Amino acid sequence: MAQLPSIPKGTRDYSPEIMVKRNYIFDTIKSVFKLYGYMPLETPAMENLSTLMGKYGEEGDKLLFKILNSGDFIGNISDQELLEKNSIKLTNKISEKGLRYDLTVPFARFVVQHQSELTFPFKRYQIQPVWRADRPQKGRYREFYQCDVDVVGSDSLLHEVELIQMVDEVYRRLKIKVRLLINNRKILAGIAEIIGYPDQLTDITVAIDKMDKIGLDKVNAELREKGITEEAIVKLQPILNLEGSNSEKLEKLKTILQDSPIGLKGVEELSIVFDYLKDVDIRTEIKLDLTLARGLSYYTGAIFEVKALDVQIGSITGGGRYDDLTGIFGLKNMSGVGISFGADRIFDVMNQLDLFPKDNMTTTQILFVNFGKQEERYCLPLLKQLREAGINAEIYPEAAKMKKQMTYADKKEIPFVALIGENEMQEGIISLKNMLSGEQHNVTMEELVERLKR
Amino acid sequence: MAQLPSIPKGTRDYSPEIMVKRNYIFDTIKSVFKLYGYMPLETPAMENLSTLMGKYGEEGDKLLFKILNSGDFIGNISDQELLEKNSIKLTNKISEKGLRYDLTVPFARFVVQHQSELTFPFKRYQIQPVWRADRPQKGRYREFYQCDVDVVGSDSLLHEVELIQMVDEVYRRLKIKVRLLINNRKILAGIAEIIGYPDQLTDITVAIDKMDKIGLDKVNAELREKGITEEAIVKLQPILNLEGSNSEKLEKLKTILQDSPIGLKGVEELSIVFDYLKDVDIRTEIKLDLTLARGLSYYTGAIFEVKALDVQIGSITGGGRYDDLTGIFGLKNMSGVGISFGADRIFDVMNQLDLFPKDNMTTTQILFVNFGKQEERYCLPLLKQLREAGINAEIYPEAAKMKKQMTYADKKEIPFVALIGENEMQEGIISLKNMLSGEQHNVTMEELVERLKR
Repeated sequence: MAQLPSIPKGTRDYSPEIMVKRNYIFDTIKSVFKLYGYMPLETPAMENLSTLMGKYGEEGDKLLFKILNSGDFIGNISDQELLEKNSIKLTNKISEKGLRYDLTVPFARFVVQHQSELTFPFKRYQIQPVWRADRPQKGRYREFYQCDVDVVGSDSLLHEVELIQMVDEVYRRLKIKVRLLINNRKILAGIAEIIGYPDQLTDITVAIDKMDKIGLDKVNAELREKGITEEAIVKLQPILNLEGSNSEKLEKLKTILQDSPIGLKGVEELSIVFDYLKDVDIRTEIKLDLTLARGLSYYTGAIFEVKALDVQIGSITGGGRYDDLTGIFGLKNMSGVGISFGADRIFDVMNQLDLFPKDNMTTTQILFVNFGKQEERYCLPLLKQLREAGINAEIYPEAAKMKKQMTYADKKEIPFVALIGENEMQEGIISLKNMLSGEQHNVTMEELVERLKR
Repeated sequence: MAQLPSIPKGTRDYSPEIMVKRNYIFDTIKSVFKLYGYMPLETPAMENLSTLMGKYGEEGDKLLFKILNSGDFIGNISDQELLEKNSIKLTNKISEKGLRYDLTVPFARFVVQHQSELTFPFKRYQIQPVWRADRPQKGRYREFYQCDVDVVGSDSLLHEVELIQMVDEVYRRLKIKVRLLINNRKILAGIAEIIGYPDQLTDITVAIDKMDKIGLDKVNAELREKGITEEAIVKLQPILNLEGSNSEKLEKLKTILQDSPIGLKGVEELSIVFDYLKDVDIRTEIKLDLTLARGLSYYTGAIFEVKALDVQIGSITGGGRYDDLTGIFGLKNMSGVGISFGADRIFDVMNQLDLFPKDNMTTTQILFVNFGKQEERYCLPLLKQLREAGINAEIYPEAAKMKKQMTYADKKEIPFVALIGENEMQEGIISLKNMLSGEQHNVTMEELVERLKR
C-alpha cells in the first residue's frame, strides 16, 4: 500500500472519542454563558489582511497564515519586484486574505462593521478555531480553538461580577477546583506612579508578572536592569509582599496609593466588585494578586486569571477589561470586558484528573446482535421504538461472527447488547447483556425502554 | 470616522439571531444522528495540498484556497522560474497547504490514516465549514458549512435504510415536508448496457439527469448529440417514461433489464431496501426516480436526493453509496454510504415557511430593570436563584433611563421584564411585565420561577 496520508504539522484530527469529551466541555460552558444572556457569534475563517495586519505586533504579522490570491496572481508583478525576492514585500502583492489569529480582532471588526444594527451592551460568545504559523511543539498547535465571552458597550462593574460568576459556575459544573486571581491595571499604574516611574509601567509589570516563576530576587534584578533606582525598588517591596485577606490588602493599598488618583480608582473598582460578590455566594477562592498583569496588552481595568488547583498547568482562563478594543477600527469609547477559556488546557486537566463523566449520553447505548435476515426484520421495529424513546440504538449491519459483533460493541464502549434469536422471537423477549458486568438476563421490550431511558 | 471594516467577498458573519436558528437546525440533525450510533468527527481546516489536489478535477484544483508558505518562501526559487510568471507552476513552489474543499476527501484521508485504530463499520458525522474560491453570487459562498453523515466498512443495505430513516426523522422534527428520490447506479449501468452503450454511461446519465429541468425532448436531443443512435433512444423511451408505484417500476425493470446482470443487481438492492422500509414506518414519500444521477461522481449503488415540497429550491439533502472512496489514498475495498444535509438551503426553507420555533430557549428569558445601586444588590441574589433553576436572566448593567432599558429588552426579544423598585423591595414582590402583551402584574419569586421554568 502507498504511504499513509497525513495532515499538516501542528494540526489535529479530533476523533469521535475526543470530540465527545470536547463537546462536553463546550456544551457546559455554553449553557452557562446562556444563563447570563450571552449569545453565539461566528465570523469567517478568512479576514482581509488589512483587518489583521498590524494588530499583533511585527511577530504576529509573520505568524498569520496568508491565503494566496486566486487565478493569475503573478502576472501583474514586475520582473524587478520578483527578482528582489523579498518575501514580505511580495506577500502584499500576492495575498489579500489571512486566517484569523484570534477571536478578539474579528470581534472588534464585527462590532465596528455592524455598530448601527447592534443593541448595546452587546453580549456575545464565540467558539471557533484560530490559526498561527508558530513552530509546533508540545501543547502548542497551529490550529486550536478559542472560547471567548465578552460584553462591549458598557463600563458597568456588574459585568466583571457576572464574568466571575460564570467562571465559578463553569468550573463547578466541570468539577475542576480553581482559584481566580484578580488585579486591576489602574492599581498597577498607581504603583508605577508612586515609585516614580509612571512611564515605565510596562517594564515594571513585565518584571513583577514573573514573580511566580522566578521569585522576588530575580524580579528585583530585572527591575535594576531596566534602570529602576534602588530607592524605587525599596519602595516597591512592601507592595509586592502585601499579605492578608483581599479587603486587608485593599485597605493597605488605599494608604500606599493615596497620592495616585488612578491607583485609588483601581482600588475603588476592585472594592465594588468584591462588595457585589458578597451578594452572589461565589464558591471559588478569589485572590487579589498584584503581580498579575497578563502581559498587560490592551487591559485598562480588571485583569483575571484562573488556575487549576490540582494540576500543574498554566492558567486555564484569563481576561480583563479593555477601553479601546474597537479603536483600531475607528470606533472610540466602546468599553468592554471579557474572558477566554482555554479549551485544550481544560481538556488536559479533566483528562489527568479523570473528570469526564463515565455515563455518556452521546454514544450508542445498545447494540442489537445480527443473527440473520429474519431476526433483522424482527429487530427493526424494536430499534425504532427505542429511538422514539430517545435511546441511541444500533443493529450490527450483517450476521457476522458473534465475536466480531461483540468486539464492535466493546470497542465502541456500548454498555448493553441485545440478543434476539429464534427462541427470543417466539417468546417475545430480549436477552440483554450488560457489557460491563457480563451479566445477561431476559427482559420485555417495556422493561428495556424503562431501563435505558434517561 | 474611518471607513467601516469589511470581510472577504463570499464570506459571512453569523450574527446571534442567525446563529440561534442555525444551531437549532444543527442540533436537531445531530440529535437524530446520535440515535443511530453516528459519532462526531472534526478534521483540520488546512490539509496538505498533496491530499487535496487532483481529487476535484482540474477546475476543482483551481478553486482550492492555498496557503502561502511561512517565512522566506521565495528565496529558493530560481530567477528563471520567477520570470516565467506561471501562477500554477509557482503555486507548487510557494504553497504546501490548502483549505478543505469538502468533508468527503478529508474523511477518506482520516479513515486511511487511522485505519488501524478504527472500529468498522465506522459511523461518523461531520459539521464543519469548507472553502471554495468560486465566483461569489446569490446563494453561493466561498465559505459555507457542510453537514455529512457516512458509514464506511460495510456494504450492508441496512445502512441505506437507516440513512432514509434519519432523513425522515430530521425533516419530521424540522417540520419540512419533503420527498425522497432514490435510484441505483447499477440500474443506470444496466440501462446503458441494454441500449447498447455500456461505455457511454456518463453521457447518458448526464443527459437524463436533466429531465427535470429541460424535459424529455431536449434530453433526447442531447443524447443524439453524444452519438447515441435513434434506435437506442427509442429503446430508452419506455424506461424514462416508466410509471406506477415503486414496486410496479421495479417489476417492469426486472423485465427490461433481464439481460443485464448489473442492472438486475441494482433492482435487487432497491427491492431489499424497499422491503426493509416496510418494517420501519417511514412518513416521507419515497420515489424511485430513474433520472436521478447526481452527476454520478463516485456513487456505485444507491443514490439519494431530498426535495422540499413547499418551496421552489434545489435538493436540500443528497448522497449515495460509494465503493472506492478511500482508494484514492491506497485503501481498497472500503464500501461506504452517506448523505449530506445542505444547511444553507434548509435555513432558507425554514425561514421562508416560518418554521423556526418562536419559543426559543436560547435567548434571555427575563431582564431585570436597573433602578440604582440599592436595587441592584437586592436583585443579584434573585438572578442567581433564577439561573440556578435554569432560567436565562440578565440585569441591565446600569440605572439608565427606563426607555433605554426597555428598548434593550425589546431589541433582544426578551419576553419578560422584572421591575423592582422601593415598593416592591419592601413588599418582597416583583412587578412582572409581559413584553408581548404589555400586561403587568405582581408575582412572588416562587411564582416567577414556576412561570419561567420549562
